[in-house]
Amino acid sequence: MVPSMSFEKPKIRLCVDQPLAEEQAVALSRDQAHYLFGVMRLERGARVALFNGRDGEWAAEVADAGKRGGTLVCRDRQAAQGTPPDLWLLFAPVKKARTDFIVEKAVEMGVRRILPVQTDFTNSERLRVDKQQAHAVEAAEQCGATFVPEVAEMARLERLLSEWDTTRQILFCDETAAGAPTILGGLEPGPWAVLIGPEGGFSDRERARLAEMDCARAVSLGPRILRAETAAVAALALWQAHLGDWT
Amino acid sequence: MVPSMSFEKPKIRLCVDQPLAEEQAVALSRDQAHYLFGVMRLERGARVALFNGRDGEWAAEVADAGKRGGTLVCRDRQAAQGTPPDLWLLFAPVKKARTDFIVEKAVEMGVRRILPVQTDFTNSERLRVDKQQAHAVEAAEQCGATFVPEVAEMARLERLLSEWDTTRQILFCDETAAGAPTILGGLEPGPWAVLIGPEGGFSDRERARLAEMDCARAVSLGPRILRAETAAVAALALWQAHLGDWT
Repeated sequence: MVPSMSFEKPKIRLCVDQPLAEEQAVALSRDQAHYLFGVMRLERGARVALFNGRDGEWAAEVADAGKRGGTLVCRDRQAAQGTPPDLWLLFAPVKKARTDFIVEKAVEMGVRRILPVQTDFTNSERLRVDKQQAHAVEAAEQCGATFVPEVAEMARLERLLSEWDTTRQILFCDETAAGAPTILGGLEPGPWAVLIGPEGGFSDRERARLAEMDCARAVSLGPRILRAETAAVAALALWQAHLGDWT
Repeated sequence: MVPSMSFEKPKIRLCVDQPLAEEQAVALSRDQAHYLFGVMRLERGARVALFNGRDGEWAAEVADAGKRGGTLVCRDRQAAQGTPPDLWLLFAPVKKARTDFIVEKAVEMGVRRILPVQTDFTNSERLRVDKQQAHAVEAAEQCGATFVPEVAEMARLERLLSEWDTTRQILFCDETAAGAPTILGGLEPGPWAVLIGPEGGFSDRERARLAEMDCARAVSLGPRILRAETAAVAALALWQAHLGDWT
């Protein structure tokens, strides 16, 4: 027997920036109202899942549906807040489609912050942070996450490393690191950052800078050359399995 | 000082289906000739890297450049044949762009065979194997691999499992496998297949079938829902790091 609509887990998930709690009313933005009532044709009484990155996931009911706005009311909390481990992803932006992909994958794989970095061999000099942040929100809505990592402004890798808080360890993926370990069992838990280089790899200067940092460790991702987005998912998987919340 | 052209490692890589050996002449197909001489504007004496999946990578020189054909001659072997471990990837095809992506990632991550499977919840019923095979060749050309995995015809998962050679172990990624391990350190090496389900997950029937197979083991990929292509890269990374050629 198919359960009645109101008891089904809502299929639409929305990320909002307002507090969520029992019977809390949530005012929709114009875009959200357009999406729910214009595109998805939801009516009063329909259910939507809400999360805000802090209060878990809530089943909310449409109380008021308008063309330019509307109100939802939180009914039941469906999931506790799931904040990923203290892991950052630093990556050198590549072509637009693959950069979008890296941001999407970082959300699915569970990182706290996404930091685009400009390296000596990075081709892309500009990145629309607002667009990438919106992309991260969309990825969280789709993958069932209750947390959206912040996408930071692009910064030069050199500058980031010179100001680095060395209590955060760095796992850096280096094609030339043939002798580097692939299994991360021996590493210390704590705050970490995974650093993925650009298509052309790191420069000798960057490699030397990383080599002299005690908190940076190279990892090998095998004998084939991985594209940046593949390396990102692979390195995050190894980290999550050994040090993160997959265990 | 920039080395002269003829000693640089060739940047263009081509997969051919002819034998490669010292001074071996290789006749180009019409498409390959068009690409090298029409698109890339190579001339007599230019160098191209060739591989065929068996004989390693060779630096070959353009001996004859025509509009509809041409000949290269193998000069030096630049890399030994790198055949990936005996690992298959079974996956349920999703939307076209993401299926392309899975094939590309399977090549980069190093699998021997790619088997698209139709599961109870697979939406896509058709797959152009020739197109996906061409896509695998292109991925190998780009990622520096000397091996191209075969893309098999789509088969029903049920039928594949009923005829399964049980000396090949199956690592299956199950969202519901909360208690499953994430670290593969304890697993036996040998022939393996990684099986990724469709967006909707496996059906109860499929899950029961896998549970009763001694050679099948569930792996957990953490608390967030991963898209099929993310799960494929993550599971292949864990396998390669513990049981494959990344060690």
